[in-house]
Amino acid sequence: MTNKPVQSLTVKKVSEQKCFDGWHRQYSHWSETLNCEMRFAVYLPPHVDDGEDVPVLYWLSGLTCTDENFMQKAGAMRLASDLGMAIVAPDTSPRGEGVPDDPEGQYDLGLGAGFYVNATQEPWSQHYRMYDYVVEELPALVEKHFPVCEKRSISGHSMGGHGAIMIALRNPESFCSVSAFSPICHPTDCPWGHKAFGAYLGDDQSAWKAYDSVELLKRSNVSNPLPILVDQGDADGFLAEQLKPESLLQASAEKGYPLSLRMQSGYDHSYFFIASFIEDHLHFHAEHLRG
Amino acid sequence: MTNKPVQSLTVKKVSEQKCFDGWHRQYSHWSETLNCEMRFAVYLPPHVDDGEDVPVLYWLSGLTCTDENFMQKAGAMRLASDLGMAIVAPDTSPRGEGVPDDPEGQYDLGLGAGFYVNATQEPWSQHYRMYDYVVEELPALVEKHFPVCEKRSISGHSMGGHGAIMIALRNPESFCSVSAFSPICHPTDCPWGHKAFGAYLGDDQSAWKAYDSVELLKRSNVSNPLPILVDQGDADGFLAEQLKPESLLQASAEKGYPLSLRMQSGYDHSYFFIASFIEDHLHFHAEHLRG
Repeated sequence: MTNKPVQSLTVKKVSEQKCFDGWHRQYSHWSETLNCEMRFAVYLPPHVDDGEDVPVLYWLSGLTCTDENFMQKAGAMRLASDLGMAIVAPDTSPRGEGVPDDPEGQYDLGLGAGFYVNATQEPWSQHYRMYDYVVEELPALVEKHFPVCEKRSISGHSMGGHGAIMIALRNPESFCSVSAFSPICHPTDCPWGHKAFGAYLGDDQSAWKAYDSVELLKRSNVSNPLPILVDQGDADGFLAEQLKPESLLQASAEKGYPLSLRMQSGYDHSYFFIASFIEDHLHFHAEHLRG
Repeated sequence: MTNKPVQSLTVKKVSEQKCFDGWHRQYSHWSETLNCEMRFAVYLPPHVDDGEDVPVLYWLSGLTCTDENFMQKAGAMRLASDLGMAIVAPDTSPRGEGVPDDPEGQYDLGLGAGFYVNATQEPWSQHYRMYDYVVEELPALVEKHFPVCEKRSISGHSMGGHGAIMIALRNPESFCSVSAFSPICHPTDCPWGHKAFGAYLGDDQSAWKAYDSVELLKRSNVSNPLPILVDQGDADGFLAEQLKPESLLQASAEKGYPLSLRMQSGYDHSYFFIASFIEDHLHFHAEHLRG
């Protein structure tokens, strides 16, 4: 069993690189929520050196990723530096000794595939509580240790796009805006979602709806809607079977919930796609974080 | 023994992603020079769709890298797309069955560490001919298969920074400009260079000088100098022992060869550093490619 540190909400810096006059850093910490040691990455723009408290964009990555993929591949820091925006990228699942993984060794369950839910089923429930981690523990850590203000937005890719929209719709008071690249829009109606939600949440599919963006949109309050921007490549190999953006579009149309979904011709599911449009997303969030 | 294809100068596309309205692609091909199958990456800006022949920036990566590191991490494609510049990134060594590696398994010799020289010593000389590959075979392939003009520039990082400056100084008629991040400036006078050059070129250090940027600069023609831009982070852990930019600066001063060396405060040896300044390099090359 891992030794649990006495103090909670402490962080330890594990790497640091200057980037666009700001700083990319990785931190590790004991997560009370996930019951394991976790690592996350933060980009701090140069504005913090002048004593400014900056807004934060939380980025949730997709299947198989860690805190590193977005920070290394998205090309987001150039504009985040200019805009004075911090970016926080957590890992995509609990990790380490004693944390269970998919017994079949597939990439779409277990390590790297937390799906941003609170698991209720064994053997997952002791560690796989990524929803609470992203909604509560991580922002508390970030706001304790870094010069950030309370303005937050959230974005993500694929599984993390699902996580971002789902978390934002469940916590609209916590975020100024939400965006996603290639999100798994309707996990209760796709193979990835069925496998993960079945394992983490059990066979009762009514329990799945609390983590499904389409279901949440149907039940959302449209009087004060959260700005939502979604980019989806039409050459994405996962589009028809796993991602199903049309389900989100239909729910938003029926509900009258504003949603900007952009189909991008020729783009696939990769970080080359994300890099191509990340600056649009940063400008979108900056506008709402300032508002 | 690998079967050698009948046709030479053929390429096979192995991946493709749309990126900033252009295309990132990986190709494999049989290299006559290296006597093995090789992979390289190319970024083609959207201008080629309009039938335009675009100039090419060759990028040489550092130790342990493949064609992927720069394309995924440097954030270069945003501006390359705007400027109408192709980028070609070769691998850093021969690969595959029968290609020898460092018997001690270190990262600084053998696979991923070709040092852009033509090896003369056993067991390296049959495959390790990265100089000829980058100077001759790769440009011939690129100019045969892609809509590029004959305007070329060259850049690289660390071992690839050494490669870029060295190759440009030896072939000034082939390039409009050269730049480097954190180059190994004086490989005949640093541990990485001694190990690699000793293995590939043998004990006679006089043979090493043909691949040393400082030695080449001393013997260069200053009447028509090639524009050179070098960025070096002052928090780079390899700076004092391996990189030695002061040796290049001193040689350029003594010779009267113009050289722009920028020491960047707080930056290290990583791609976070490269990303921070790559656009300066692309603008620098674009200016000279247009000239």
